Parts: sequence; structure tokens; C-alpha cells
Amino acid sequence: MDPVNIGEKLAAFGDHWSPKIVGELNGQQVKLVKLKGTFVWHSHAEEDELFYVLRGTLTMEFRDRTVTVRENEFLIVPRGVEHRPSAEEEVSVMLFEPASTLNTGDTVNRFTKEHPDRL
Amino acid sequence: MDPVNIGEKLAAFGDHWSPKIVGELNGQQVKLVKLKGTFVWHSHAEEDELFYVLRGTLTMEFRDRTVTVRENEFLIVPRGVEHRPSAEEEVSVMLFEPASTLNTGDTVNRFTKEHPDRL
Repeated sequence: MDPVNIGEKLAAFGDHWSPKIVGELNGQQVKLVKLKGTFVWHSHAEEDELFYVLRGTLTMEFRDRTVTVRENEFLIVPRGVEHRPSAEEEVSVMLFEPASTLNTGDTVNRFTKEHPDRL
Repeated sequence: MDPVNIGEKLAAFGDHWSPKIVGELNGQQVKLVKLKGTFVWHSHAEEDELFYVLRGTLTMEFRDRTVTVRENEFLIVPRGVEHRPSAEEEVSVMLFEPASTLNTGDTVNRFTKEHPDRL
């Protein structure tokens, strides 16, 4: 039951597209991730996913439109909805999602992180 | 699927100890709340609760110690653990908790908000 300092946790890693678990509650996980470039199209059959932008600007593509998520904004992507995150410049994001969530959802590829690190 | 701007939502209310629902996913809710003064001792039998401090400083008392949570830090209070939040100056907090969570947990009193507003 110690406070988790987001700035300290963000300073502790630099790799992209590799979520780090920083908290766990009610079967959900809080993760931090740094994104840069373009991810893969995917969806999560059973999990809604929250992207909270801490630093930078996140672009979220859907099949029918593109949404820009700026610093101190969050976006909830409902289960089953195909999405593709991207970021021209590095963006730091906090994720809230079920512990069962795989970062690449229904696809498995070089971005897939089956067992995210805990920070 | 529109982004939620935290600053805009915080600007939309001023009352204390009255959580506002700003997001919902996986049976969990994201709420914003402004706190000032001292709340009541309570616990949540079935729900872990996350307090993320957006602005200001939160004091969380437990029966055996007191924890200070500063801006851009979060604290997870596990289910069953008695706690009492307080804040000398106003603090803005994001909560992440199951939709079933009552703000005063196992107690009912003048602070109790059975049906939080949605913002």
C-alpha cells in the first residue's frame, strides 16, 4: 500500500510497445507503455481497454475514423472494435484493462508480449 | 468513442466528496472527485479502490499508518482495509473501481452518494 509515482516508473524504461504492470486491482491491471510509430490492427474479444495519455499525443485509428488523444485525455476502446494505435513522436500512456488482456489482442506477431514485466 | 478531457471534466464541477462517473469499462468505473477536509472511516468488502492524484496532495489514513499521495501518484487500497481520505487543500482525484463501489463503503451517512452523476 505504497503510492506509485508515475514519473519514476516512466523514467525506469525506454522501450516501445512493451507494457509494464504497475498496479493490479479487481482483476484489472494498470500498465504504463511508451509508443512510437505504428502498431498492428487488432481487437480484444472480451476486454474493453482504456488509454490515458500522460505525455505526448496518441493517434487511434478505427476502420471508419481516426481519433486524436492528447495529454490528460483518455479513450476507451470497447471490446471487439478493431483499432491501431500510432504516434509520430513518443507518447506515454497509462492502460487500464483486465489482467487477461494481450497487447496484440486477437493477433500474435513480433509486438506480442505474453508476460509483461512488473515495474 | 470520443476522448475524455480530464481538465474539462474537472472544470465542470466544484462540490467535494461527490464522485462523477466519466468512463465505464469491464464492469469498472472511472470517476473524478474533488476532496477537501476529512472523510469518514470506511472500507469496501468486495472492491479494491485506486486513487490517482491529478492535482494537489491526498492524505490517506489507515488504522496503523498514514500515507501521503502526491500529484501524479496513485494508491491502491485493497478490499477490506479501513481507510479515511483527507486533504488540507482541495485535491482532485481520479478513481478506478468496480461499478458497485459505494463511496462510503460499509457505512451510510451524509457523505453517501448512492447514484453518482455522470459527466
